[in-house]
Amino acid sequence: MLLLIATAGWSSERWAERMRQRFPDRDIQIWPDRTDDLAEVDYVLAWKAPAEVMRACPNLKAIFSLGAGVDHLLCDPQMPEVPIVRVVDPDLTERMCEWVVFQVLLHHRQHLQYTAQQAARDWAPLPQPSAREVRVGILGLGVLGARAGQALAGLGFQVAGWARGLKAVDGVESFAGADELGAFLERTDILVNLLPLTPETRHLVDHALLSRLARDGALGGPVFINAGRGGSQVEADIARALGDGTLTGASLDVFETEPLPATSPLWDAPNLVISPHVAADSDPEALSLYIEEQIRSFEAGGGLRNVVDPAAGY
Amino acid sequence: MLLLIATAGWSSERWAERMRQRFPDRDIQIWPDRTDDLAEVDYVLAWKAPAEVMRACPNLKAIFSLGAGVDHLLCDPQMPEVPIVRVVDPDLTERMCEWVVFQVLLHHRQHLQYTAQQAARDWAPLPQPSAREVRVGILGLGVLGARAGQALAGLGFQVAGWARGLKAVDGVESFAGADELGAFLERTDILVNLLPLTPETRHLVDHALLSRLARDGALGGPVFINAGRGGSQVEADIARALGDGTLTGASLDVFETEPLPATSPLWDAPNLVISPHVAADSDPEALSLYIEEQIRSFEAGGGLRNVVDPAAGY
Repeated sequence: MLLLIATAGWSSERWAERMRQRFPDRDIQIWPDRTDDLAEVDYVLAWKAPAEVMRACPNLKAIFSLGAGVDHLLCDPQMPEVPIVRVVDPDLTERMCEWVVFQVLLHHRQHLQYTAQQAARDWAPLPQPSAREVRVGILGLGVLGARAGQALAGLGFQVAGWARGLKAVDGVESFAGADELGAFLERTDILVNLLPLTPETRHLVDHALLSRLARDGALGGPVFINAGRGGSQVEADIARALGDGTLTGASLDVFETEPLPATSPLWDAPNLVISPHVAADSDPEALSLYIEEQIRSFEAGGGLRNVVDPAAGY
Repeated sequence: MLLLIATAGWSSERWAERMRQRFPDRDIQIWPDRTDDLAEVDYVLAWKAPAEVMRACPNLKAIFSLGAGVDHLLCDPQMPEVPIVRVVDPDLTERMCEWVVFQVLLHHRQHLQYTAQQAARDWAPLPQPSAREVRVGILGLGVLGARAGQALAGLGFQVAGWARGLKAVDGVESFAGADELGAFLERTDILVNLLPLTPETRHLVDHALLSRLARDGALGGPVFINAGRGGSQVEADIARALGDGTLTGASLDVFETEPLPATSPLWDAPNLVISPHVAADSDPEALSLYIEEQIRSFEAGGGLRNVVDPAAGY
């Protein structure tokens, strides 16, 4: 009865501590400190750990992702065929909602222009459209996209979402599949990406896609906000789109390579807000409780919830 | 049957045009172009116009304010004793809600720190409290304060409001009167001012008041946001509070003198967001309809709605 914590780039110890509090009678170990007796490992709690760790556990029952995305697990074809459990946590959902609402309002309320005016001691009120005149489009209508969409609709924005299939979310117009992507983009002033990273969504947001966004909107030009995965964007294209006016603004929290390299052209792009992957942290307290509940339910004969569909990639 | 538009610092012509569309058979005039035959004036639509204009209309039936505040009318003891109608417009309410939510999120999500980091190409995630850990306090629980409070509570913040009397607003804890101001301030991390400007509220927000805000909060220090009236704040005290750490951040949309003079110490204050009185513009389309409906109802024998109580000052 062993839980193995396997992370890369994070401190595993804070996770191990919490899991030891939740399961005081179990053996909680950290990879790569513990690499013997892997036959005893029932569960791996993983963040960007190599598949070989999971493959070396012959009796593994399930893998729990420690972050909202699971592309770090699914990108490796060598991953063993055990259930992978995604994080669906209200705390993480609310944090993501906050960040998306904040960035939408930042561009809607013309904050970057006012910041430049303030630096120049220039008092110059700008015409301000109402939220009713502004169309937000959310790529991805899972738990995170639906919650952010509802919050934005509650503030008066015209909100639509795009996903593989049609979704019923109060106040959010639904577009589905490749056939409807064009119509979705053409009615969108502020595009928000919350898609999982899969082979289909990798590099989806390129200059050609951004060129299809609405140019007749009340804000004077389109905005792109990425709170999903950096791999979904072509970063050179976003820098180019900001430079050539295809985009009038953008906010990026995620990047193909993190930390964002000092050589990235994004650092010099105009009207861009960069944040260091902080939109929605995993809260160890809430997440360790979620994992505890799942394990106890599973061992009592119940099913695991929020299991990834490997074919869909999320 | 004459409507007189009397504004200072605004273009009266755009208001006159709309009112002519709404009342095509009436005489719509602009002060000071028209100063004869003032005995025919039934209504004045006013923004910062001198009381002598209104006093020169012996048959005046009502004054309609063209902005959310009415201090521009009540500050003059010479104002004639006719009903003064406030703006209560859903469009204005939503715009104000947007701006308040935006500024609260800006400080909550540590945007000023991240902006400085971005300029330095520094990738440094900061610990981020959840909204549940942050206490917002709203000075003023009228239509605007109640709406902003509900929106912030919906995002998870702990919200309280302070007003002259207790108010029942869903999700918002109510504090009332001078006796409870101290308890309200002591539980507040982010203070939002939406009070009307009256003799009681003039210069209310000074260094002493800001010193009473919570210092044990998750954000590391208090924040002040003013979307109400500049006259409610002591600007030298706010600059001092930002400099000496009594405040860790502030956002001001309103000032005692507007435009903010180039000599104001606020331009050099750290961690301050300045915007040029743009939180909630009056929308001429919505507001002219509101005034039309009020006049038609009044002339049909109904009462005027949202009439100012001169004793209360709002």
